[in-house]
Amino acid sequence: MPMLIEIHDPDDPRIEPYRDIRERDLVGRAGLFVAEGKVVVEKLVGSALHRPLSLLIAAKRLDALRPLVAQLGDDVPVFVAAQPMLDAIAGFAMHRGILAIGRRTDVPDADALLARQRGDGDVLLLSGIANHDNIGGIFRNAAAFGAAAVLLDAECCDPLYRKAIRVSVGATLLVPTARLARDEDALALLDRHGFAPVALSPAGATELADWRPGPRNAMLLGAEGPGLSPDILSRARSLRIAMTAGFDSLNVATTSGIVLHHLATARR
Amino acid sequence: MPMLIEIHDPDDPRIEPYRDIRERDLVGRAGLFVAEGKVVVEKLVGSALHRPLSLLIAAKRLDALRPLVAQLGDDVPVFVAAQPMLDAIAGFAMHRGILAIGRRTDVPDADALLARQRGDGDVLLLSGIANHDNIGGIFRNAAAFGAAAVLLDAECCDPLYRKAIRVSVGATLLVPTARLARDEDALALLDRHGFAPVALSPAGATELADWRPGPRNAMLLGAEGPGLSPDILSRARSLRIAMTAGFDSLNVATTSGIVLHHLATARR
Repeated sequence: MPMLIEIHDPDDPRIEPYRDIRERDLVGRAGLFVAEGKVVVEKLVGSALHRPLSLLIAAKRLDALRPLVAQLGDDVPVFVAAQPMLDAIAGFAMHRGILAIGRRTDVPDADALLARQRGDGDVLLLSGIANHDNIGGIFRNAAAFGAAAVLLDAECCDPLYRKAIRVSVGATLLVPTARLARDEDALALLDRHGFAPVALSPAGATELADWRPGPRNAMLLGAEGPGLSPDILSRARSLRIAMTAGFDSLNVATTSGIVLHHLATARR
Repeated sequence: MPMLIEIHDPDDPRIEPYRDIRERDLVGRAGLFVAEGKVVVEKLVGSALHRPLSLLIAAKRLDALRPLVAQLGDDVPVFVAAQPMLDAIAGFAMHRGILAIGRRTDVPDADALLARQRGDGDVLLLSGIANHDNIGGIFRNAAAFGAAAVLLDAECCDPLYRKAIRVSVGATLLVPTARLARDEDALALLDRHGFAPVALSPAGATELADWRPGPRNAMLLGAEGPGLSPDILSRARSLRIAMTAGFDSLNVATTSGIVLHHLATARR
């Protein structure tokens, strides 16, 4: 059972990582991240890829959160503060009443991550997804449909940014991920590990619904607007999702959900 | 060709509807709405359901926007302002450089809207979707996959709120919609018009992938968390989307995309 530490001073140095969360989101925090809300902190506590360094919770929520607190190791401090103190520390009204600081513990490179994958399964490879809502939404779908990993190119935003974690409902803490080096040849990487590259594009050659997936696929998704690079499109099988004439516009996270649902259904 | 009117004073009464847009989002604007960005304003100008009352554009964007402006009637004023003036009027940095005020012209009740539907087709019926991102995302999917209409219960938020329009990429201006009365029996309404009610629920009886849709379906979606009411669930066929054990959580807009894609594929 971890020790509960009451906080009465917003300048207490022990809660320094929780201070002015919004401002510090903008600059990042080498290897650390902020999880907020009960469901997301539960995912952090249960994650094999990351570990909680501390929690900060509103005193009024302590009783309801005791089962979660009881899962923590003795070395994880749980700071408890009155709600107004919590708001003052975080720099905004922290209605959820529970925050945690986590540390990334599993940071494989893309080669090492793919080398771990055994047997059949699929990964996502994202190019230039710079929007935290979309990154969070894609990870949420990856978790819901059991994708083995999500690979990010150098232009993608950080899935451990606070908003991305929240939008993903904690999935960015659960799905194995790795970032490609800036000059890495993504398709050569996938080929080395036996994943067939499958590009999603409005101009794709085959309709998704007609595609029967092989055993190991890498589903390639680009940012809305620019899409995937001509180089990637020329070297991968391409799929399209049939849409109404005059409104051929899908959100990239929704696209990932449709694609992953198709894969999950085909694998039954 | 509409008349171009230069604006040099942020207090000019002619641009009153554009003033302090963010603040006024909070209070609503009886029958009027704000569209922002070129793609969305194009949808408004082309919409059969709404009409533009005026445009406000950044002077530096005027040349690029002339083809759009040329589609407007002579009675639609186009206000032109320098970018700093535009920002001062709107109350924030209006990078997109184009705004429009629109008026709802097609406001049928739900009965009248369903009475218009001829032949095969599907509608969505949303319960308690109070998040503008989700409403916008659902309408975007409805437009992309050709849903005939989106019905809203009394608890749903306004699809013509500025953010919902933006997230929908203008789809909320294109897809016919109506709101149910607070005490309206949704399933009786659907039955009168020959739409089979199909509820999406994590506890649904049949997997979506195994469902073969009939000619006219109403897909029922509830808010994440509470879901659909027990009354609706007890009176409709129910479908589930199979997910990974331990992370059975899909965003409702993503769910709508998966469901509408399944319908579109089944109808080919």
